[in-house]
Amino acid sequence: MRIADLDTPALLIDVDVMERNLCRVAAYAREHGLRLRPHTKTHKIPALGRRQVELGAAGLTVAKVGEAEVMAASGTPDLLVAYPVLGPRKLARLMALPPEMRITVALDSLEAGRELSQAAVAAKRKVGVLAEIDVGLGRVGVPPEQGAALAQALAGLPGLEFEGIAFYPGHVKLMDEAGARAIAGLSEVLAPVLDAVRRAGLDPKVVSGGSTPALFQSHLAAGMNEIRPGTYIFNDRNTVVSRACAWDDCAATVLCTVVSTAVAGQMVVDGGSKTFSSDRLSASPEVSFGHVIEAPGAVFTRMNEEHGYIDVRNAGRKFAVGDTVRIVPNHVCTAMNLHEQVYSVRGDDVVSVWKVEGRGKLQ
Amino acid sequence: MRIADLDTPALLIDVDVMERNLCRVAAYAREHGLRLRPHTKTHKIPALGRRQVELGAAGLTVAKVGEAEVMAASGTPDLLVAYPVLGPRKLARLMALPPEMRITVALDSLEAGRELSQAAVAAKRKVGVLAEIDVGLGRVGVPPEQGAALAQALAGLPGLEFEGIAFYPGHVKLMDEAGARAIAGLSEVLAPVLDAVRRAGLDPKVVSGGSTPALFQSHLAAGMNEIRPGTYIFNDRNTVVSRACAWDDCAATVLCTVVSTAVAGQMVVDGGSKTFSSDRLSASPEVSFGHVIEAPGAVFTRMNEEHGYIDVRNAGRKFAVGDTVRIVPNHVCTAMNLHEQVYSVRGDDVVSVWKVEGRGKLQ
Repeated sequence: MRIADLDTPALLIDVDVMERNLCRVAAYAREHGLRLRPHTKTHKIPALGRRQVELGAAGLTVAKVGEAEVMAASGTPDLLVAYPVLGPRKLARLMALPPEMRITVALDSLEAGRELSQAAVAAKRKVGVLAEIDVGLGRVGVPPEQGAALAQALAGLPGLEFEGIAFYPGHVKLMDEAGARAIAGLSEVLAPVLDAVRRAGLDPKVVSGGSTPALFQSHLAAGMNEIRPGTYIFNDRNTVVSRACAWDDCAATVLCTVVSTAVAGQMVVDGGSKTFSSDRLSASPEVSFGHVIEAPGAVFTRMNEEHGYIDVRNAGRKFAVGDTVRIVPNHVCTAMNLHEQVYSVRGDDVVSVWKVEGRGKLQ
Repeated sequence: MRIADLDTPALLIDVDVMERNLCRVAAYAREHGLRLRPHTKTHKIPALGRRQVELGAAGLTVAKVGEAEVMAASGTPDLLVAYPVLGPRKLARLMALPPEMRITVALDSLEAGRELSQAAVAAKRKVGVLAEIDVGLGRVGVPPEQGAALAQALAGLPGLEFEGIAFYPGHVKLMDEAGARAIAGLSEVLAPVLDAVRRAGLDPKVVSGGSTPALFQSHLAAGMNEIRPGTYIFNDRNTVVSRACAWDDCAATVLCTVVSTAVAGQMVVDGGSKTFSSDRLSASPEVSFGHVIEAPGAVFTRMNEEHGYIDVRNAGRKFAVGDTVRIVPNHVCTAMNLHEQVYSVRGDDVVSVWKVEGRGKLQ
């Protein structure tokens, strides 16, 4: 089958670009002695998780128990749930994951630690635990100065094995000089936390951070020894805008059809927020929703669920109803979550259909 | 089962509020002699489409062929596809819909009209067609002055039956006096179009518009005889902010659990853009993502896929890890699209589980 034979909208993954992205990051991690535990929320496909492990990832990361259940099929020996698991049903599902798969949970409260501990004891299972600290995003994680106390409290809970510290430098969105300085500056945030943890008699074996925009600066953050990037497998418009990759490194595009050219200077395509998600750019105040490969001067200005509004006044070419275009989404993780299946492609050919098995796993 | 027994995040529909919303709009349409053809993109559930027809809707509306296939199970005698259907495979699926269900398509180009005509002729099926005009949103639809020419061209195509004019007044977002004037002002936009269509010897039986924010002003638009509101079945924060309903009229809430309170003045809940969608308010520049029922003073300031950041400095109460809250989403249509199933509730009880059968139908 060829791409031209696909109905639209359809999300396409260029397998050669994807493989190059995977190999590049695997090599970077190896070169700098960083443990790689990729976040699978981007692809949500066990076969791709397996490929990441084959290429040297020490394990995989998920956010929800439902994602862990799906990703168990990857055969990864190690799975980090980078999210507190609360409530008896979710904890029972967590404990029911394959016993040969090491499970670690990152969390920031003693409440979540106690629930996890009780479930681990009841299931006669040892569960790893990372104490989450906030290094600047202001989302989750205790302040760094409370990191050692949280670590100590977690280490004292039965059924849990303290493994180290987790954080997410999601506040660093732009890979300019200031971004690199911010990543290097994490060294000074981490040092006193790690000292305090060690003074408390604990060994922070794992110091886990990393995100895609800051990926290739990870070696500047002394003390961090694990990275958990997700987006790097496909990359997206956010990655390009953050200066962490080029357009040629974007493996994921959405194939759309032009459905209307009735309004002057504009075309409407059959993908909107239900196809791309309405996520804006994270590293730029510009309000636009994708990069049109066939016409880089076109601007994807607005969307409704099924309508993408594209300003074509500077497109440099004409489009007619029925034409197709390929668009790099702002945020590929949320776009993947909207598709039951995606198409792996090479050149103009469709190689295979991939079911997005981890799509919609909210719980 | 009770709401307290549900895992989170979960989307809840209060059935009594929903029924009241349905009856109110059915009565309004009856009172003003307006044909009601509700857009089912909001609920995506055939049983709810059936209920709309039972309460007097003349038919139902969908955007995509996949939604039409799902909504056929509602038993509606009439279905409007308010979107051009392009390409042989989609058109074949459209023609394969139950023959006893009248199908109408709204479109704005002769290209789309010709494709539809060829498919109708090949399938030996008569398909209704509405000529779409743009009344101010600038999305799809020919300029009003070109409406009659489009109507005439469509009416001349074999297999198609010209039914009238369609438009979407989505540019009217706020039901203040200016909003009401804008809806009343549609009379002057429609009159010359309808005159020209009649002068061309055609009968515009259906003049179809309507959206939820402007719903109860529809009778002010002389010439319009059909409305296609969608959101009114559940309502959402957009509807409240547009002044078209009260918080008590919002049937849909998302049940979330507090997963972190580690950052001062903030709680994080287990629903973010993967649960709510990242749609902002349509009628206000305020950037926030939902209304917390238990703490109206709390502000849902940011989201990532699995994290909702809620500023609780003015919440008027304390929240702890493990607490649950119910949140009215900004835009219920895109939120519904993210859930495999939703829960119908009455008071504290879960009445039933509804599969969102039309979820993710992109094609």
